[in-house]
Amino acid sequence: MNNIQINFDQKLENQLRFIIEIDKAKKIIRKSRLFDNSRFENDAEHSWTIGIMAVLLKDYADFPVDIEKVIVMLLIHDIVEIDAGDTFLYAKDRSEAHDKEKIAAERIFGMLEDEQKKYFIGLWDEFEEKKTNEAKFAGVFDRLEPLLQNYITEGYTWKKHGVTYDMVIEKNLQIKDISKKLWEFFLKLLDDAVEKGYLKR
Amino acid sequence: MNNIQINFDQKLENQLRFIIEIDKAKKIIRKSRLFDNSRFENDAEHSWTIGIMAVLLKDYADFPVDIEKVIVMLLIHDIVEIDAGDTFLYAKDRSEAHDKEKIAAERIFGMLEDEQKKYFIGLWDEFEEKKTNEAKFAGVFDRLEPLLQNYITEGYTWKKHGVTYDMVIEKNLQIKDISKKLWEFFLKLLDDAVEKGYLKR
Repeated sequence: MNNIQINFDQKLENQLRFIIEIDKAKKIIRKSRLFDNSRFENDAEHSWTIGIMAVLLKDYADFPVDIEKVIVMLLIHDIVEIDAGDTFLYAKDRSEAHDKEKIAAERIFGMLEDEQKKYFIGLWDEFEEKKTNEAKFAGVFDRLEPLLQNYITEGYTWKKHGVTYDMVIEKNLQIKDISKKLWEFFLKLLDDAVEKGYLKR
Repeated sequence: MNNIQINFDQKLENQLRFIIEIDKAKKIIRKSRLFDNSRFENDAEHSWTIGIMAVLLKDYADFPVDIEKVIVMLLIHDIVEIDAGDTFLYAKDRSEAHDKEKIAAERIFGMLEDEQKKYFIGLWDEFEEKKTNEAKFAGVFDRLEPLLQNYITEGYTWKKHGVTYDMVIEKNLQIKDISKKLWEFFLKLLDDAVEKGYLKR
């Protein structure tokens, strides 16, 4: 049945149908492993982890950020993958995926009334464009979690997909623009990963 | 290995070890089903969903709430279950569980330096005590998600554990104190659940 139809309040019922719809993010499987390497992570779990990372590591932002906005951005940023699927960060053509994601954002956030639809699509667009401090800082955690997962699982996803040191650096340069400290840490961890044989230079 | 030891910055490394530790919440299985009834939900997924619910439904609070605080509370509220396990809302003795959870909070949040340890334990205590508007409002979503899950899965957990209408009312009275609108909805949905045979009166 998967629906609520009790004719109590249309707006509220639409909001709850949205909550039921986004449950599908729990079925979208990422390329990254849980830290115990027992299985792949899903989008909902990933979003939860990086939401907490943002709270925990907020002091490492080099510029002022509205941390509430960062958290909400992170919680909703992968909902579009319910329709568009997970695209690997190192995939060759990500522009086609982005078009699919735009259509997905319209459909899924479009389940809400106009004001909230605009709010969530706006937040998602902002995250994707990476121009504001909030979007840049949110992006750090979206990258940092898989980096840690790879390190802890001795390079599971890097090895499986032939990802090299240069590829990781290129895709993560944006960290430097918003947090010098986390960028330095990132470089140190990568060096250690190369030394331990988790990542090829 | 499950650890980070690169001697870059002790505080940051402790924070990241905390992130790795709390990944175990993805293995803590709740009594509630995903909305598609395919499997049980885990604590990380549950926390993600109710974090978004709080953002989406924030206008239904009858009193002013700091919504950032509500979201962070919801994201971290079940981390203690990594050590203490999931306790069913309708279990007879929840006080023993609470003692275990207190010890768990000390251990897990104790992985962080003092200031952040105090911050997170404080938030968790506040959530448990249900005295502030934020804790009460956060509590609504912690209850509302399983309610919806039961409704959508035609009473899966209610039937399995012999939960009755009166038991659900008793355990959810607190919703009334912070959101009349969500309480009215809750009553309507319960009536419908009884009528459809999902819940026994």
